[in-house]
Amino acid sequence: MMMKNKVLILFFSALLSSTSYASNVNDFCVADLKGPDSLSGYPCLPPTTLTDDNFVFNLQPANTSQFPTIKAGISTAFVNEFPALNGLDISVAHVAFEKDGFFPMHSHPDATELIILVEGEITAGFVTGMNSIAYLKTLKPGDLMVIPPGHLHFVANSGNEKATGFATFSSSNPTIHSFNNIFANNVPSDILAQATFLDIAQVKKLKARFGGSN
Amino acid sequence: MMMKNKVLILFFSALLSSTSYASNVNDFCVADLKGPDSLSGYPCLPPTTLTDDNFVFNLQPANTSQFPTIKAGISTAFVNEFPALNGLDISVAHVAFEKDGFFPMHSHPDATELIILVEGEITAGFVTGMNSIAYLKTLKPGDLMVIPPGHLHFVANSGNEKATGFATFSSSNPTIHSFNNIFANNVPSDILAQATFLDIAQVKKLKARFGGSN
Amino acid sequence: MMMKNKVLILFFSALLSSTSYASNVNDFCVADLKGPDSLSGYPCLPPTTLTDDNFVFNLQPANTSQFPTIKAGISTAFVNEFPALNGLDISVAHVAFEKDGFFPMHSHPDATELIILVEGEITAGFVTGMNSIAYLKTLKPGDLMVIPPGHLHFVANSGNEKATGFATFSSSNPTIHSFNNIFANNVPSDILAQATFLDIAQVKKLKARFGGSN
Amino acid sequence: MMMKNKVLILFFSALLSSTSYASNVNDFCVADLKGPDSLSGYPCLPPTTLTDDNFVFNLQPANTSQFPTIKAGISTAFVNEFPALNGLDISVAHVAFEKDGFFPMHSHPDATELIILVEGEITAGFVTGMNSIAYLKTLKPGDLMVIPPGHLHFVANSGNEKATGFATFSSSNPTIHSFNNIFANNVPSDILAQATFLDIAQVKKLKARFGGSN
Amino acid sequence: MMMKNKVLILFFSALLSSTSYASNVNDFCVADLKGPDSLSGYPCLPPTTLTDDNFVFNLQPANTSQFPTIKAGISTAFVNEFPALNGLDISVAHVAFEKDGFFPMHSHPDATELIILVEGEITAGFVTGMNSIAYLKTLKPGDLMVIPPGHLHFVANSGNEKATGFATFSSSNPTIHSFNNIFANNVPSDILAQATFLDIAQVKKLKARFGGSN
Amino acid sequence: MMMKNKVLILFFSALLSSTSYASNVNDFCVADLKGPDSLSGYPCLPPTTLTDDNFVFNLQPANTSQFPTIKAGISTAFVNEFPALNGLDISVAHVAFEKDGFFPMHSHPDATELIILVEGEITAGFVTGMNSIAYLKTLKPGDLMVIPPGHLHFVANSGNEKATGFATFSSSNPTIHSFNNIFANNVPSDILAQATFLDIAQVKKLKARFGGSN
Repeated sequence: MMMKNKVLILFFSALLSSTSYASNVNDFCVADLKGPDSLSGYPCLPPTTLTDDNFVFNLQPANTSQFPTIKAGISTAFVNEFPALNGLDISVAHVAFEKDGFFPMHSHPDATELIILVEGEITAGFVTGMNSIAYLKTLKPGDLMVIPPGHLHFVANSGNEKATGFATFSSSNPTIHSFNNIFANNVPSDILAQATFLDIAQVKKLKARFGGSN
Repeated sequence: MMMKNKVLILFFSALLSSTSYASNVNDFCVADLKGPDSLSGYPCLPPTTLTDDNFVFNLQPANTSQFPTIKAGISTAFVNEFPALNGLDISVAHVAFEKDGFFPMHSHPDATELIILVEGEITAGFVTGMNSIAYLKTLKPGDLMVIPPGHLHFVANSGNEKATGFATFSSSNPTIHSFNNIFANNVPSDILAQATFLDIAQVKKLKARFGGSN
Repeated sequence: MMMKNKVLILFFSALLSSTSYASNVNDFCVADLKGPDSLSGYPCLPPTTLTDDNFVFNLQPANTSQFPTIKAGISTAFVNEFPALNGLDISVAHVAFEKDGFFPMHSHPDATELIILVEGEITAGFVTGMNSIAYLKTLKPGDLMVIPPGHLHFVANSGNEKATGFATFSSSNPTIHSFNNIFANNVPSDILAQATFLDIAQVKKLKARFGGSN
Repeated sequence: MMMKNKVLILFFSALLSSTSYASNVNDFCVADLKGPDSLSGYPCLPPTTLTDDNFVFNLQPANTSQFPTIKAGISTAFVNEFPALNGLDISVAHVAFEKDGFFPMHSHPDATELIILVEGEITAGFVTGMNSIAYLKTLKPGDLMVIPPGHLHFVANSGNEKATGFATFSSSNPTIHSFNNIFANNVPSDILAQATFLDIAQVKKLKARFGGSN
Repeated sequence: MMMKNKVLILFFSALLSSTSYASNVNDFCVADLKGPDSLSGYPCLPPTTLTDDNFVFNLQPANTSQFPTIKAGISTAFVNEFPALNGLDISVAHVAFEKDGFFPMHSHPDATELIILVEGEITAGFVTGMNSIAYLKTLKPGDLMVIPPGHLHFVANSGNEKATGFATFSSSNPTIHSFNNIFANNVPSDILAQATFLDIAQVKKLKARFGGSN
Repeated sequence: MMMKNKVLILFFSALLSSTSYASNVNDFCVADLKGPDSLSGYPCLPPTTLTDDNFVFNLQPANTSQFPTIKAGISTAFVNEFPALNGLDISVAHVAFEKDGFFPMHSHPDATELIILVEGEITAGFVTGMNSIAYLKTLKPGDLMVIPPGHLHFVANSGNEKATGFATFSSSNPTIHSFNNIFANNVPSDILAQATFLDIAQVKKLKARFGGSN
């Protein structure tokens, strides 16, 4: 009789499963990175192909030898590395800075960033549109700092030791818009100088550094 | 001259139609269930293939012989049955309970549920995260009860007669997460017992009933 | 010893409750109808003042003597009648039509409507922007029809008996924009005649009927 | 050494680019109009195929000889004409009216309209669901008028000269639902007369004008 | 008898009005600028206090003598100037540039910008995060250019005459984040120099110009 | 002359600031916890009152002596502790487990959870609605696991040492719905037993433990 109960309840389960097939797909949607991308992200892998491993990702520690010029490194778990994040509005990176290391001014148009400092000391700041205010703080381990979406910000190791932490984001795929991108293209130097109020010599120097021309 | 007006206005109409082709697709988007699913639902059937019948669905009455163990039945009009609901944020099910019938504890992660009792008497309840409060009411015909998204809830026939009604949802595809699903898999019984504060014998008994192992 | 467990776990519970106070408010937000309204709805009643009764509402049957001219009635459970629906994206009305009763052409700018016919026979239709198509169907008990947001539609009793059913909406407060509102104001008749392609005599006749002037 | 800096920074750039590939697609998504449409719009053209030209569109002036009956014209830059607008929640049309020209009563279910009058004089109005109020104003060059989503509205040249301006929308693809569409189909005239409170002769007259039957 | 019809229909109208009071508020919500601001905008003025004038705003032409340094001017119709836009996801500004006038590099974190050039010639460009690409175009009257949300962009008069046009936005309150804000505060010059790759002398020069210190 | 430039540009800045006042509030909105809560969160503190400190929060390490029964602790930075997170769709908690410590089965209706294991070994699992599948993994330091919104899940220390990590969420205020809440109220034991398929003795035992009655 237990058997009968089991069978009947499972039938109930089966019916709900079949009617709720697409719902589960909407509950989560592990990205099929080969599918066409769209504004709402990638199409979903078929739920029946998923295993435990799809929901776990090993985030390697950031390596400060990755970018010697800025003495910093970043290791990301965004949707392209961890497809289960597709559409779930969250992602994370591990970041590391040697002494004097830093991340230059950049913004994430679509994502809040929440910094978690684990070791060392960093100074981070962001600039707002209102009254040209900059909010700037030196963080110790355990300190968090929040950067609103689309705000230009930077992070610098302000201590004497290595600094490491996590940068978490409110998007599965936070775009990184580096300020120095504006020098890495062929926009004429005089136009850039006008648009940025920089001296033209400064613009040309940075164009040379970041691979721009004109 | 009427004719001329007609032709000219129809030309106007045609232009608007051609420029607004995709708009109409966005106004509604009858699901192509064969298309790849995504976080925003299914792709749309071509508007030109649609007929009156696409917008109507016959919802069969729920049959309480469907699930003898719980003496209840459910008949759903979710997006998989009624593809015109795709993305329109609404769906409905007919539900029926024999005397002593019930729907066990479950939740809908993405959808509000609004219960409409048509006949009989039911008692429904949901549990909130705050202060462990449960809201519990006995409903008579004409009574509505609202269950917030993601809240564990149950419904039981508390009268002496059959009870029937509608469950409406704020999603075209409300997922049904039954509490008893946690016993229908191969998670080791000792881990489940710890995670639920249940006695291990109780866990094993329910694993047997719902087809779980370990 | 049970006592000790209980106390400790409750402490855990208390902590989570205090940290999640506002979360619960966001899970649901029973409207304080006296508060200032905003684009995201009403402010919330304090969670500690809520009881079981807040989540239940008795929907009276619609009475066709309510609007003798159209031989129809409507009984609504929208946010103003049932404040627990605030922000939960769902609401419902009971509707009833005598023989020859109908609801005139109208739209709901922000809400999908899903019609559930319970008894009798109705004919319902909506008009799309694309190619001037109208989708029109006669419904029998158990039939559902979906009206996309913002589409002009009407419902008429097309049988020989009373017809009743439910209209469910994907908004807690679906606006009703009746086509005849365009005659119930002081916009000059000649302007209205031009804008609608109606004869001016027809415009004046309807202005008289619906309380408009000019 | 500059060279070394440049190479290293570019490597950093390259890494960020590869990890943020899909992010950029989400930042903007130029429509592939051949792709299947969905509720969230078209799939994206591959970012590597985009050029400067994708982000610019020449909006031709509206021509009032386009629709002689209403002495008006419209030239649109919606997603089908300007695919870069896909999902960016904005679009624009140029509109022109000869003396006595007008746009008949219509609505945009999914979009706010913001009218910018550039030359001439127009009178525009919209009707709300609440208390049958119509808001009606005569505009001079430089005046703006806002029409909430889904509200029936019209625009008429109320001056003695040509009038031109822009209609901007909060959607990349604002649907145009013309009131006269309700006469351009085969819904029986008696049903339409009942649903609109119009005289049946008026309905038949408009059916003849707009190509409807029955 | 007409009278009777009128009375009855108006009663129907009154009922719908009372039940849909809050709906209309949600259809549109003219900002009460004195109310507390929130993430979803301002609270609404009471609908009964609204008149035709609330929905119309006179946008003055931009005056290039407004900012002599950049030989440009801007006249805005954002929510603070035109409160009816509150929450309707659209706004507009008139912009004007003398010969050699320009708007310096800036971004709008929450809004797409769609530029409509009316007279003269401008060159506009934006920089993307991916592969450091800049999209740059010279526009003639009638040309549109779209700037995705959060992307750094600039506009310069590249012709020999005055240039004027409209900038429309997908937000009722598009924030303007000027790149030069990063020099208008007290962030130490050496930190800024590091974060931007600029020479420290350049940083100090711009700090002096834009009112920053340190 | 530089001075003149400075003054003029600052005037430009001031104008933009005044027109964009509310925009900045929308860019971020530090919660006024005393204000009325709403579905879109708390009202904003006046921007002019904000300092650097508003954007930083010190997250204390979790202390496993906090909940001796489950040998675990949690330290949260949700909106009530860190008001700058208001509406920014992100938050974080530090979690710690002694040997044999665990967090019992619970869900977060509105938030994705992304677990970052820093030290030790944990086993975490979640149950889906589809086919009763449970996804279960043992994590090592550096491993991430993602839990979709609204899914019942648990975490247990499965190693021989203390385990610590971060739980990040896609909401500024993730609600914690513990499964054991269903025993901490006055719902009659027989109703609960029916709704959960548990033996009534088991229900009564857990009611006693978690403070429920009936």
